Formats: sequence, C-alpha cells, structure tokens
Amino acid sequence: MAEADLRPSVAASETGDPLLLTPGPLTTSLSVKRAMLHDWGSRDEGFLAMNRRVLAAIADLAEAGDSHVAVPMQGSGTFAVEAMIATLVPASGKLLVLVNGAYGKRALAICARLGRASAALETPEDRPPDLAALERALADDPAISHVLAVHCETTSGILNPIEEIAARVAAAGRKLLVDSMSAFGALPITPAAAPFEALAASSNKCLEGVPGLGFVLCEKAALAAAAGHAPSLSLDLADQQAALAKTGQYRFTPPIHVIAALDQAIREHAAEGGVAGRGARYYENCRVLVEGMRARGFQTLLPDALQAPIIVTFRTPVDPAFDFQRFYDGLAARGYLIYPGKLTVAESFRMGCIGRLDRADMAGALAAVDAVMAEMGVAAGAPA
Amino acid sequence: MAEADLRPSVAASETGDPLLLTPGPLTTSLSVKRAMLHDWGSRDEGFLAMNRRVLAAIADLAEAGDSHVAVPMQGSGTFAVEAMIATLVPASGKLLVLVNGAYGKRALAICARLGRASAALETPEDRPPDLAALERALADDPAISHVLAVHCETTSGILNPIEEIAARVAAAGRKLLVDSMSAFGALPITPAAAPFEALAASSNKCLEGVPGLGFVLCEKAALAAAAGHAPSLSLDLADQQAALAKTGQYRFTPPIHVIAALDQAIREHAAEGGVAGRGARYYENCRVLVEGMRARGFQTLLPDALQAPIIVTFRTPVDPAFDFQRFYDGLAARGYLIYPGKLTVAESFRMGCIGRLDRADMAGALAAVDAVMAEMGVAAGAPA
Repeated sequence: MAEADLRPSVAASETGDPLLLTPGPLTTSLSVKRAMLHDWGSRDEGFLAMNRRVLAAIADLAEAGDSHVAVPMQGSGTFAVEAMIATLVPASGKLLVLVNGAYGKRALAICARLGRASAALETPEDRPPDLAALERALADDPAISHVLAVHCETTSGILNPIEEIAARVAAAGRKLLVDSMSAFGALPITPAAAPFEALAASSNKCLEGVPGLGFVLCEKAALAAAAGHAPSLSLDLADQQAALAKTGQYRFTPPIHVIAALDQAIREHAAEGGVAGRGARYYENCRVLVEGMRARGFQTLLPDALQAPIIVTFRTPVDPAFDFQRFYDGLAARGYLIYPGKLTVAESFRMGCIGRLDRADMAGALAAVDAVMAEMGVAAGAPA
Repeated sequence: MAEADLRPSVAASETGDPLLLTPGPLTTSLSVKRAMLHDWGSRDEGFLAMNRRVLAAIADLAEAGDSHVAVPMQGSGTFAVEAMIATLVPASGKLLVLVNGAYGKRALAICARLGRASAALETPEDRPPDLAALERALADDPAISHVLAVHCETTSGILNPIEEIAARVAAAGRKLLVDSMSAFGALPITPAAAPFEALAASSNKCLEGVPGLGFVLCEKAALAAAAGHAPSLSLDLADQQAALAKTGQYRFTPPIHVIAALDQAIREHAAEGGVAGRGARYYENCRVLVEGMRARGFQTLLPDALQAPIIVTFRTPVDPAFDFQRFYDGLAARGYLIYPGKLTVAESFRMGCIGRLDRADMAGALAAVDAVMAEMGVAAGAPA
C-alpha cells in the first residue's frame, strides 16, 4: 500500500464539512444552503409563490398532479408519516403494516399512540414482504382498510417491491399508504404504476434539501373526506390543505428557510434530469461503493437484486481487530461520516450513497477505508 | 411635508430583504442565517454538542436549569404547544384555558382533537384574564388539573399578567402551562417568579432564530411521570427527552440548520445582554412606534399598561380613503412588511417591534407610513 493511502487528505464538501455517507440529513450543495440567506414574511406573496412552486413540483415528480395534492407538514419525515396515518386511516379503519425494518415498526408504534387498529405482516430485515401472505391477510381480514409499505427501508437498505405491493392492495380493494421517505426523488413512483392513496416523504433525502419539512401526496378525494378526523390539530393534513387552498398560507408558521432551500434543491434536481438523473447518480455511487467494499472483503447484507441505491448495509468483519468506533472515528477524521447499523439480525454498519456526492467521493471513501483498516491492523481484503 | 418624505428610499435588511414588522418569522441577522451554510450529521458529536448547548441555554434564560429541562420539538410553535398539552395533561386531567385571543382558542381546539377535557375562561381581546374569576373557576371545578395562559397574545399584542396568574394557579394546587411563544427571550419569566409546570416557545420569535423548532421547558418530575401518555408519537415530549437523555440524539431527524441558526442567535442574544438587553431594545422600538403613530393620529387598541413590546395593534382609520391593502402594499414597496389585524372586536392592523430591528428602523417605518398616507390621500395626523 502506498504511503499516500495511509495519509489521505481530508475530504470536505464545498463548505468544508465532512461528507455525509448517511441516509439523511445529507450533504447538500452550497447553492441550496445559500438559498437560506434571506428572510421572508410568512404571509407575504414572495414566500407564498415559492411555497406553491415547491408543492406543485413535488406532485409533478410523482406525475400525480391531477389526482393528488402535495400537503406539507412541518417537522421531520416521521411527522409526515404520523400525519398521513392520523388523517387518512379513520377511527373505524385498520392499518396493515408491511414490516421488514425499523420504519415499519415505527408505523405500528404510531398507530398504537393514535388509537388506530393495526396489524403487522413481518419478514426478516433482509427479505421483501411476502406478497402471497399479503393477499391472504387482505382476504382474511375485512377490517383492514389501509396497507402501509415502506418504499426503501433504510434499516437494511432494501428496496421493497412497491408496484407489486400496490397491485395486490388495489386488487383487494384497499388503500395503500407509502413511506417513501428515503426513495422519493431518486426512485420512480407514480399512482399510475403503483396506485397509492398517499405517499409521505421529506425535504432532506433524495431531493437534497435541508431537514425540517415533510410532505404527503394525498389523493384529493380521500383528503377531502378526512376533514376533522385526525386526533391532532398540528398533524391534520386535511386542515393544513384547507387553509392552503383557501388563503395560500400555512395555518402555523412554516419553516421558511427550509422551504427556500427545497425550492433551490428542486431546481437542481430538475437540472440533473429529474428522478431518472438523480437515480442514475445514486446507482453509480452505490455500484462504486459495493464493488469497492466487496473487493476489500466486506460482505453486503443484501443481494444486489434487493439493494436500493440509497444506503448499503455491510456486515461487521469478524476479525477481532475491527472496532466500529475506531472505524467510524478514522473515517470521520478523513472527512467521511458513516452510519451505525440498525439491524437486529447481524452486526453491521451502513454507508449512504445519497446527497451531493459522486463516484469520486465514493472512491475517496474507499481509500479512507483502506487507511483506517490498515491503522486498525485489519488486513484490507480480509474476508468478513 | 418634504419631497424626500414622499419618496423614501427602500428599506432593506443586511441581505436586501424587506424589514419584517411582524410577530415572526422575523428579520434575523446575516450572521444567524450564515450559520446555516454547513451540513452536519444528525448523529455526529459536532451537531450533538451544538444541540446540547442550545437546550441548556434555553433553560438558563428562564433560570430553570435545576427544576426544568428544555425539550425540543420539531415544527412550529403550535406543535410545541400541542406537544405540551398532549404530554402533560393526562387523559384524566382537565385544562382550563385563559382566552383573550386566537392562541387561547387554538389551545382549546388542540384539546378537542386530543380528547382532553377543557374549559375556557374568556375575556375580550383587549382585556387581561379576570383573576378573581380564575380563582372561582379553580375553586368550583376540582376536575381542573392544569391551567394554560398565553404570555403575550399576539392577536392584540396584550401582555397577560403571568406572575399573578401563576400565583393563583399555584395557590389552588394546580399546574400552569404557559404559551410564551412571542415573549420568551425578551420578557422575563422564571419558575421562581411564575411557577410553571411547562412553558412553550420557539426558535423564531424573540430569540431571533429562523423558524422550524419549538421547545418546551418541562418540570423534570412531571415529564418523567408523563411517559407513554401522549396520544401521538411525534409530539411526545417524554419520549423525545428520554432519547436525548440516553443518547444525546433525536428520535427523528432534527432541523439541523435551524438549530445551527438558533445556536448563533442565542450567542447574539447573550451579547445583547440576554433577556434584559433584548427586552430593552424591543421596548424602545415599541415606544418609537407607538409615539410616532399616535402623533400621526392612529389609535392603539391597548392602553400602554397592557401593551407588550412585541406587536402593536392599531385601529383602522375611519377615513374611507384608507384602504388596508393599499397601505400594506405601499409599505411593502418601501421595504416594510406589516401584519393584518386578527381582532374580532375592531378593524385593525398590526406592526411588530421584534426581530433584528432598532429605533432607526421604526423611524423609517413611520416615514414610510407618512408617504403611503399621502399617496392614499389620507391626511397624516388625521384622527382615527
């Protein structure tokens, strides 16, 4: 190994920050952050026009502008998911959650708090939902009104087969809610290909904005029928949309700077070629990362066919010289922040492919991995 | 009137934006906005240290660090108020709300959605709560476990007598929740002087940060006893605090850039002399505004004794040549954004005194008022 590999220069974003190889918040462009260098009145037309533009663009990304409306929700993505469930699953309804990771489990926890009936159909973290079991569950339990599926489960990085799930839910005459938090904007999803009543995502994943705003693409008729149903004022999407439709204004203070950043981020998303262009860069990032890590002896949790190009789970090497905290700190010292594992089935860590990163950044991360492994005395290329 | 007064130059903040004479979001310093020009990992120590610093500083502002803990809540101030009620008023409790404006009414709407019993003690928008009636209500209804008071009601701009309210609530053995959204950071409030179980405020009012984060100062013992009570996962302050105490991390993605801005804003708040210094500037802004507007014949809704130095409600002049939209647009064209009225008792408009504004800005706004009144053909100085 060359001396240079042992002392790589420290990687940094345009603003001198470590590169975030995480599932979000992630590295954003300087121009996205610079869009926050202004103040706007929350009821002034300058801001309201920007907000309308953002929401219309979000609906367009899903080719859903005719049937659905993008309703913003202040807070994190989980606030948007809770708002989606609270608003659209009626008190008399029941939500079947397809669980293969932490985000499916979180939807169940939300139902428990909201007092909404729920059931789980669980598969291991490295397996997609069982479609035959889904069909049976829907046939067996007429109380189920809605199904919730997680598009990409960042617990493992698995891409769940959202179109196949949607087809079965529609065939059974039920409604689909999608948690597309970490996929929306990079992986295509449309109501035409995957009929959904609602889809929740956020500003700071594949759209590459900053965190602080979630949104839910809601079927217009379903949203109108849900007025007054939510057991929360803040999280009521029907009330939020009613105010926006009537006055163009938010009911409660919007995170204006976050929305300004998202407006710029959506412009940059379009310039990159929209969902296809964004997805292509992430697929390439993922390919470089996975091939490089495998060449170094690391094993991915998932086979390639199940891997979404969002975040990759690697099994922790068995070599006792490997220590995750030293690995994390060593990569951090070289400008790369990675993510701990979240699996229950295996010791692991995760590296993200999303954000303002390209293949050169992924190659830099691989060089940093080499250096840290050498530092720890774990042979690069050692079998995991 | 001098020619120059008819064509004032357009006022602008450091970043070229109109000055926001609103109750927030408001004009922030360039340095506060520039703090957002970075990205952080949400689980990395760099961000976690910043977050701890912000929350500790918030508790210190209320001299409450021993008895209370500042729990952050993603979203707007209303999310924090709803989280406070959802977490701390138990299902078996009852909330008496002191209503003299829209924010008191909103707390009642929140109770209705959450399924929490509530009662209102209402006074007109230009009157403080009736303290004798409060004593009677608490004596008459043993089911009341908590009282909610709004510190400054921006509906009118009234300063409610929070210490007198707190004394009566404490004497009756009940718990006080304070909506101090528009006052916290400029008007002193401490548990010693005004015993409260919890107090909600936000990043983008008198602390002069950007919008996107609320927080609730919670009595530690009350919060610990509230585990699992909230009928919402996202809005559960006990769960939020449990995660922060255990790992230093948020349960769900925090609005990192908003928190970075708040960190800088709190530094600038301290440099200005803390609550006393910030309040002194706002009182002076308010004095210049009120004296200037009265000199022009405008009438304030409130007598000076009830006026908080946050936002001032002026009665709409009776001259039929006065048109609010033209007034608003004319001021906006000169770089000053004001706020419509929210009163039910009288036609009015509002002008704020908070944000990165000083007496020179207020004087500039008065000159712009002169120009717009002349344009509309409403004689400056005409009695309202």
